[in-house]
Amino acid sequence: MEIKQKIEKANEEAVQRMISGLPVLVDIAPAGEVVPGLEDRMIMHSGPPIEWKKMCGAQRGAIIGALLFEGWAKTPKEAEKLLNNGEIKIEPNHHHQAVGPMAGTITPSMPLWVVENKTFGNRAFCRQVEPKQQFGEFSEEAIKGLELWRDIWAPTLRQALNKMGELELAPIITKALQMGDELHNRHTASSSLFANEMAKGIADADIPKKETMMTLGYITGHNLIFLGLAMASGKAIADAAHGIDYSTVVTAMARNGTDFGIRVSGLGDEWFTAPAPVVDGLYLPGYTSADGGLDMGDSAITETVGWGGFVIGGAPGILSLVGGTPEEAIGYSKEMRNITTATHSTYRMPGLGSIGTSMGIDIRKVVQTNITPIIDTAIAHQDPGYPIIGAGLVRAPIECFKSALIAFSKKYSGD
Amino acid sequence: MEIKQKIEKANEEAVQRMISGLPVLVDIAPAGEVVPGLEDRMIMHSGPPIEWKKMCGAQRGAIIGALLFEGWAKTPKEAEKLLNNGEIKIEPNHHHQAVGPMAGTITPSMPLWVVENKTFGNRAFCRQVEPKQQFGEFSEEAIKGLELWRDIWAPTLRQALNKMGELELAPIITKALQMGDELHNRHTASSSLFANEMAKGIADADIPKKETMMTLGYITGHNLIFLGLAMASGKAIADAAHGIDYSTVVTAMARNGTDFGIRVSGLGDEWFTAPAPVVDGLYLPGYTSADGGLDMGDSAITETVGWGGFVIGGAPGILSLVGGTPEEAIGYSKEMRNITTATHSTYRMPGLGSIGTSMGIDIRKVVQTNITPIIDTAIAHQDPGYPIIGAGLVRAPIECFKSALIAFSKKYSGD
Repeated sequence: MEIKQKIEKANEEAVQRMISGLPVLVDIAPAGEVVPGLEDRMIMHSGPPIEWKKMCGAQRGAIIGALLFEGWAKTPKEAEKLLNNGEIKIEPNHHHQAVGPMAGTITPSMPLWVVENKTFGNRAFCRQVEPKQQFGEFSEEAIKGLELWRDIWAPTLRQALNKMGELELAPIITKALQMGDELHNRHTASSSLFANEMAKGIADADIPKKETMMTLGYITGHNLIFLGLAMASGKAIADAAHGIDYSTVVTAMARNGTDFGIRVSGLGDEWFTAPAPVVDGLYLPGYTSADGGLDMGDSAITETVGWGGFVIGGAPGILSLVGGTPEEAIGYSKEMRNITTATHSTYRMPGLGSIGTSMGIDIRKVVQTNITPIIDTAIAHQDPGYPIIGAGLVRAPIECFKSALIAFSKKYSGD
Repeated sequence: MEIKQKIEKANEEAVQRMISGLPVLVDIAPAGEVVPGLEDRMIMHSGPPIEWKKMCGAQRGAIIGALLFEGWAKTPKEAEKLLNNGEIKIEPNHHHQAVGPMAGTITPSMPLWVVENKTFGNRAFCRQVEPKQQFGEFSEEAIKGLELWRDIWAPTLRQALNKMGELELAPIITKALQMGDELHNRHTASSSLFANEMAKGIADADIPKKETMMTLGYITGHNLIFLGLAMASGKAIADAAHGIDYSTVVTAMARNGTDFGIRVSGLGDEWFTAPAPVVDGLYLPGYTSADGGLDMGDSAITETVGWGGFVIGGAPGILSLVGGTPEEAIGYSKEMRNITTATHSTYRMPGLGSIGTSMGIDIRKVVQTNITPIIDTAIAHQDPGYPIIGAGLVRAPIECFKSALIAFSKKYSGD
């Protein structure tokens, strides 16, 4: 068999695995309980590997917040000292079956969404999505949000889920794509549908009224609560397609605010990186592009499996947040067909005549066409200490795909 | 002032009243408690006035079902006898501030959504939306659905709403239009958002677990539950714009499966009717167009205030139900600008660059352009005894608008 045929076959296998992935929420558990290899005094972060000293401002701010949250430090100064002295271990989420939005910090006591890919049995984890600490803010209020998640909301949801048994996420994802969500920055529909499912579980689990009211208030008022579930789903789906010899399909895109990195199914655990790009976005009042940090977060796992920017044509409601016209948005979704391997059989875009979502990014096609994946994303400040400041669109840097393709040629040149 | 100016001024007033309408759910109460003029042994129905003997099959079936539900008859035969003998009074919903989906039957013990237009203080009522009795089915199962609504779901929701005080519907409507609902046949988003709100009220009202679980199951599983609320909202909004001298704006479109009727703001309570048209639709398995009854229901009150077919361009998810392409749907929404008076300042369509919904149908513009309002609607069987059999698109008959314009000329010819 010629190499080209081997690649086609491998890519077909990769996308078939992605299409047949069945993400199911099976637990909401403290990271320390469930994440393999997560040690005490260790913090996980978004994107490819990076040292504390090379981290961007927002990621440093979030890491300081994470230390305060865990009680490993009492003040930001104390936290910085520990970090500067190398007393806190730092590793990427992706090295532990996990993903995290923006700075992506995960620490042992933080409850995570635990999603199992029922088709293949692998699990993936994602942390809570919130508008402050994950963007680099480490104020008392930012830490309070994490504490409420740890002490009230997550344990209540866990009890409810235990009563429910588990929750299939594919039906929510399918429906949300028909309801104007793109499953990266617009989760209005999926969050509402998810809240309805959990409301039944909460009622059925006989949870005390105070916790019930607080948690119902949280889940029905949180327009992005499903992002954490979509990210864990994306990771569980993409991981099952990883490690197929000869496959040129991308199985991770992740950014740490300094570097943008990709992983490829047939290229093992190596990251192919390039400097994180600038996001072309709209800013919240009081902020301008001069404040904006570079592209950051594991959330591009949604684009990796064909959501986010890839389905933005079906989510015109997001344009007030990220900019652009409905026609441009549809243009992006159509453009992504040029660099992908297949269309999904279940996840469809009604605004584009109900065609399936384009998925299975092929590094060969990206390099050949010079079309890079479009990602819609939130924007963090370039300095530590700020909440979300904007959102916009960004393209994955072509250099990642080029260096991956070179590595691919080297690895498989014997054939 | 010339008559043309008087009309423009009156129409401006009519649409301003529509735009400023603020629908709020204030109660869920048995019709007999709240509907003015609803007597014992009286049934209200959809569309313009019609006698029992001239009713279409589906409406007759639904009326038989309503008698069985009220216990006024024990068998369909007995019901028919009472009706043939004129022992049951029959009047249109629209004559009692009410609207009802499809056959639209409302009887005294049936709980209704009570929506108050807070800007003007007027109230409107709509009944529960379900897939059987309102389409003409009068089986035990169909009646059971009404009984559950009367005995469990509605009283539970009423208790919850009492605890909540009231529920503003405009935020749900606004959000749902950003989420692919057109607020006539697609209510996936609005129903989900509504269920989110009611779940909190149910929890807060300390309702017993059995009723809680049954009602949460009902509201989270009913994709069209918000249609009744949208219809009551539409009626409350349109009624406030009715009765303005010189206004050529349509304030009601309603069908009884035999006749299609409209009312016009400046033309009092007169109905301008034409034979109900055939719906161009898709049929559920086992049915064909040969089974389909003619256009039926008060639900075109949604199009009257600028929703439904008028915003179908923003609701591509509905096309699998009613047929057509996303481009055609956007075309309909754009076309409706030609026959309307204004665009709404709050209700917007993200898929059309976030322009406001077109509203305030002007009978002059309809007649001048020969463009008639587009309505997307469900389809009932032509014979009594069937559930929903399909859905599709239909145009309001031009004759209604022509005869209204003639009446308008007569009424205001002295000027």
